[in-house]
Amino acid sequence: MDNASYAKGLEGVIAAESRICKIDGENAKLYYRGYSVEDLAEHSNFEEVTYLLIEEKLPSSDELARFSSNMRSGRDLAPPILQMIQDFPKTAHPMELLQSSIAYLSGYVKHRIQHSSNCDCKQTLHQVAQICSVIAALYRSRQGEDYIAPRTDLSHGTNFLYMLRGSDPEQYEGEIMDKCLVLHAEHGFNVSTFTARVVASTLSTCYCSISAAMGALFGSLHGGANERVMEMVDAIGKKENVKNWINNALDRKQKIPGMGHRVYKAKDPRATIIENYLLELSEKKNDFRAYEILKDIEKVFRDRMDEKGKPLYPNVDFYSGAVYRLLGIPSILFTPIFAASRTAGWLAHILEQRKDNRLYRPKSLYIGPEPLEYPSP
Amino acid sequence: MDNASYAKGLEGVIAAESRICKIDGENAKLYYRGYSVEDLAEHSNFEEVTYLLIEEKLPSSDELARFSSNMRSGRDLAPPILQMIQDFPKTAHPMELLQSSIAYLSGYVKHRIQHSSNCDCKQTLHQVAQICSVIAALYRSRQGEDYIAPRTDLSHGTNFLYMLRGSDPEQYEGEIMDKCLVLHAEHGFNVSTFTARVVASTLSTCYCSISAAMGALFGSLHGGANERVMEMVDAIGKKENVKNWINNALDRKQKIPGMGHRVYKAKDPRATIIENYLLELSEKKNDFRAYEILKDIEKVFRDRMDEKGKPLYPNVDFYSGAVYRLLGIPSILFTPIFAASRTAGWLAHILEQRKDNRLYRPKSLYIGPEPLEYPSP
Repeated sequence: MDNASYAKGLEGVIAAESRICKIDGENAKLYYRGYSVEDLAEHSNFEEVTYLLIEEKLPSSDELARFSSNMRSGRDLAPPILQMIQDFPKTAHPMELLQSSIAYLSGYVKHRIQHSSNCDCKQTLHQVAQICSVIAALYRSRQGEDYIAPRTDLSHGTNFLYMLRGSDPEQYEGEIMDKCLVLHAEHGFNVSTFTARVVASTLSTCYCSISAAMGALFGSLHGGANERVMEMVDAIGKKENVKNWINNALDRKQKIPGMGHRVYKAKDPRATIIENYLLELSEKKNDFRAYEILKDIEKVFRDRMDEKGKPLYPNVDFYSGAVYRLLGIPSILFTPIFAASRTAGWLAHILEQRKDNRLYRPKSLYIGPEPLEYPSP
Repeated sequence: MDNASYAKGLEGVIAAESRICKIDGENAKLYYRGYSVEDLAEHSNFEEVTYLLIEEKLPSSDELARFSSNMRSGRDLAPPILQMIQDFPKTAHPMELLQSSIAYLSGYVKHRIQHSSNCDCKQTLHQVAQICSVIAALYRSRQGEDYIAPRTDLSHGTNFLYMLRGSDPEQYEGEIMDKCLVLHAEHGFNVSTFTARVVASTLSTCYCSISAAMGALFGSLHGGANERVMEMVDAIGKKENVKNWINNALDRKQKIPGMGHRVYKAKDPRATIIENYLLELSEKKNDFRAYEILKDIEKVFRDRMDEKGKPLYPNVDFYSGAVYRLLGIPSILFTPIFAASRTAGWLAHILEQRKDNRLYRPKSLYIGPEPLEYPSP
């Protein structure tokens, strides 16, 4: 196959140039458009970060006000989407519904942009704004509770908690929720972002590209690690059991979820930040169970890894599940929340892909049977 | 970026080995699992070809009987899917609904298989069976007509026409429809099939992978050429106008849809077969307008290309739109029909991907700003 080379899983292949996200694995630093996630988590919010990712710069205060108002006004769901959510089987996973509803939403946007490499889908913010609404509506429908209409006076994170609960969250809860969305908004190339870019390279719609990315995030090799971390916490039960449990698991060569990262050679900067949120929430709610178990897992695990000369550190998924749980969010919504946040990054990648587009068209190597006769009857 | 090489659009990169489809571009031959599409179109049918693609061999007559019965029994749509179809905005494209409804269906299958590399989603045939039903239901809903329940005594192609029309098609119509599905069922790597494999590589569900592939097929750089061929036929209007129209178009460096193929160096074998169906249908219906215009376009275009020493030949999209139109199918359903057929191939690729899986994880090259200070307030 003329000069082509086989790269299983596309390992070692650079598929695109990108200006969106810099990951400095050696120093455990992560930057969106040049700004460190530490700064963004401390000073910014999800709406501003969405603007930064999509518009390639921080907004002025006027620009942010217009952008927020636009995003907030798009939060509410059309009745057919609500119907679809209510009819969705209770046993199915919310990620299936999310993938489905985002493609469906594509039909509901007046200014949906498609089939153009010069698209102005920066105006098409519904997919960022409405995903949290779909998640909240689905959760309440499963609980047999009514849909709570969104409010426009609340930040993205606070409004999400409000739509889940039907009552005002505490201010610190809304802030932590919003900052968690900031910290998950973008992380360079990974299989869901790559999927979004592949679909966008056909000039399909932004919605259809994001819907496809959600299908990838649903895969157990990609999303869902923070759910598994909390299953581990529950299996361990109390702090006193950590050492035995982890040592047994490692002796059985079991993988410890939330530990290790392909890129970071030290503790994931997002894990460091989220650990602080967890401590803050544990103090406010006077519930340290998960925090203490997680800290002990980290310690026991790192001691074992250090002995082996294979240092491994917590990644973003290690502490986030415990934060969400203290915010009253059930595990099944963890991956959907990741999707709601990452949609900002996906959209930035879709826009970047379209700016200098080339259809993704790798080859395959045929290793099947040579021509066969169709059997005579 | 350590030894990685930048391949824009993954050009020249082999992303996987595959046993499914052999394309011999030099000799204009196409094989599914070793069998030529000529043989399959003549002797086989869509259900058998689906079996062949998924099970890697032709079925015995007993195996085919069981398989067909299984596939036919899965054709009917659940009421919430019908509701969702009815509520879908009439102005939106059926591909958006298709992508959405397939992900939604993922929640409706008892034996949906996910998160396992040893999945038995061969049993999960609903996505192949129900896509034609979704298309027919959507079309009738747009016409203000009721849903027609599927029948189990009809072939896949015949049943589709029956569900579109609400009355029995002629036998030759059903046969041609079914053979068109055979001819579009598989074509190796392309961006939608690649998308299906990328999503499947995360161990997402078959449905979610196929839904994502539909998002890619919706892109104007991928699907939709047969719609554009028929727009050209309509713009030309009658045979006498062909020569001037095509010469003018070529002088303006306009692209002629349905002409040329990245791989085939001669006439696409599927175009040759579909041209025969078009002739047969034109005779039966005594309507030669599209056939004559298309034949003349092919002649004028090829003469011009031969002069330039750049021979280009019709591809699969050149004659298929005219066939569908003579079967009473509107242009907006052409890409959805492609998707309904190609789902068999996508499913085969998803199964193959899972057998020897490696997550698709290319790199990107960061060319954005170096670290920036977050402005003080």
